[in-house]
Amino acid sequence: MAGEFARIARYFAPLAGPAGLGLRDDAALFTPPVGAELVLTVDQMLESVHFLPGDDPSLIARKLLRRNLSDLAAMGAAPLGYLLTTALPVQTPESWLAGFAAGLAQDQAEYGLTLMGGDSSSSKSGIALSITALGAVPRGRALTRSGARAGDELWVTGTIGDAVLGLQARLGAWADEDGVLTRRSLLPEPRLGLALHGLAHACIDVSDGLVQDLGHIAEASGLAATLYAAAVPASPAAARQGAAALAERLTGGDDYELLLAVPPGHEAALRAACGSVPITRIGQFTPGRGVRVLAADGTELPLPRTGWTHF
Amino acid sequence: MAGEFARIARYFAPLAGPAGLGLRDDAALFTPPVGAELVLTVDQMLESVHFLPGDDPSLIARKLLRRNLSDLAAMGAAPLGYLLTTALPVQTPESWLAGFAAGLAQDQAEYGLTLMGGDSSSSKSGIALSITALGAVPRGRALTRSGARAGDELWVTGTIGDAVLGLQARLGAWADEDGVLTRRSLLPEPRLGLALHGLAHACIDVSDGLVQDLGHIAEASGLAATLYAAAVPASPAAARQGAAALAERLTGGDDYELLLAVPPGHEAALRAACGSVPITRIGQFTPGRGVRVLAADGTELPLPRTGWTHF
Repeated sequence: MAGEFARIARYFAPLAGPAGLGLRDDAALFTPPVGAELVLTVDQMLESVHFLPGDDPSLIARKLLRRNLSDLAAMGAAPLGYLLTTALPVQTPESWLAGFAAGLAQDQAEYGLTLMGGDSSSSKSGIALSITALGAVPRGRALTRSGARAGDELWVTGTIGDAVLGLQARLGAWADEDGVLTRRSLLPEPRLGLALHGLAHACIDVSDGLVQDLGHIAEASGLAATLYAAAVPASPAAARQGAAALAERLTGGDDYELLLAVPPGHEAALRAACGSVPITRIGQFTPGRGVRVLAADGTELPLPRTGWTHF
Repeated sequence: MAGEFARIARYFAPLAGPAGLGLRDDAALFTPPVGAELVLTVDQMLESVHFLPGDDPSLIARKLLRRNLSDLAAMGAAPLGYLLTTALPVQTPESWLAGFAAGLAQDQAEYGLTLMGGDSSSSKSGIALSITALGAVPRGRALTRSGARAGDELWVTGTIGDAVLGLQARLGAWADEDGVLTRRSLLPEPRLGLALHGLAHACIDVSDGLVQDLGHIAEASGLAATLYAAAVPASPAAARQGAAALAERLTGGDDYELLLAVPPGHEAALRAACGSVPITRIGQFTPGRGVRVLAADGTELPLPRTGWTHF
């Protein structure tokens, strides 16, 4: 493998924008947009924790970037740029780096942001990666988790549960003939660009699991939440797995859909704000504490866990 | 060990400033200072690569933060806040986290910044940590590596070589009776707050090794550099190791001193700008390419390597 500085010059410098100073300086330097608040988030992906050894490096890169973009989307922010850290075992082949950089290049173009800097290290164990994403939101227009009010409806974009079923399908637990579930697991779609300010009282992206992330909104807002399990939208591929998959879908996470608290009577405006992104009403907020998950018959649905937690 | 969210609430939420939104949201949110450019940098510290298993967690935390603050110092920026990632093996004891958070708290107070957010994960191997630091510099006043001009003098703050000798002393290579070398290796002092704008044409912090980092300035500025090895300042503890330590000191890195290109005739102003921080002239920039390291007799000093590189 080429030396550290040669690798940076070959694979990462071409990804850098003006703020990156050619990746030859101690830090990134940029002028913040006038009238904006800035949003900063960081997410890691570690081999054998967040991805499997042998996974396509371009898809690892794109998922790493998209997980961070989803956090920006949950705050109502637009992406500006990102920093990258890599810790790679000495035996990592050049082809891995080439694929990884190609994935970043593809999604930089897709989402309109550039590399601003980073840090590279050797690793004594597996591959460890992180991205810090920077975004901007017009002043006072950021969405947070804590603004839900009693009476708000609970809405969710897209479909829930494909990613966890896709991961489990790769491990042999489910059939995935057309590969849709696997693809959703490897390549989420951050819901950037929805005009939710003034409509949504609170927002979070579904990363840990629908029930757990709903709990985060409820707790931060000082409310109780009810989730109608049968209303939670499934893709055709997930629906084919039937009722046996429901608990996994509600708690598996990795969906990167947006979960929203919206006051009643705004469905038309909400659908207009979401454009071509489907959106479904799946519950409501009430005074109190905790999350109740109800089955179609109105009884409480038992769940073995609420979502993903790192021990 | 307590669960992920309980750990965040107990150890990290008390470190968060207003931008951190209580560490309960998807990202940090902040209004950039008026008239400022922003500086962003990220550095990792991995067990068995950047620190030894069993090292004091409060010192690991402080060094991780200070390495990033040194990058801000090298750009002439003042710190605003930081994001933290942790990837910890399941068996990591609570006491490790308590010590780590205490180290962060101590240096937050010392350097006037707060935690803005982060990401925590389990690790299947060793401890992996990173910090992304955010700083601000008045518009147009950032220092970079690329501005050195032919005829500029080369200056360095503090002393060079303690950290590498301290690391090697811990491994038995050198005597370190008073522990000064070890302390410098575990706890660098970022050179924040020096009024170098308008004085220094270029600046870098010495992290990879003096010769290699000088090479970064020379290359980015399109110049050659000459380094007078005998002029490179040593602490009393490093000086006691004698001539045998010279090559290690010039190439070992981890010093976090500032290396500056300054036009001739500005020594008094430079010393005034540095206040109580000692500063020493150690070389110069000339037209050409590459770095020459000269011994006291004017002959070229042979070096086995120029500095640290991750394979």
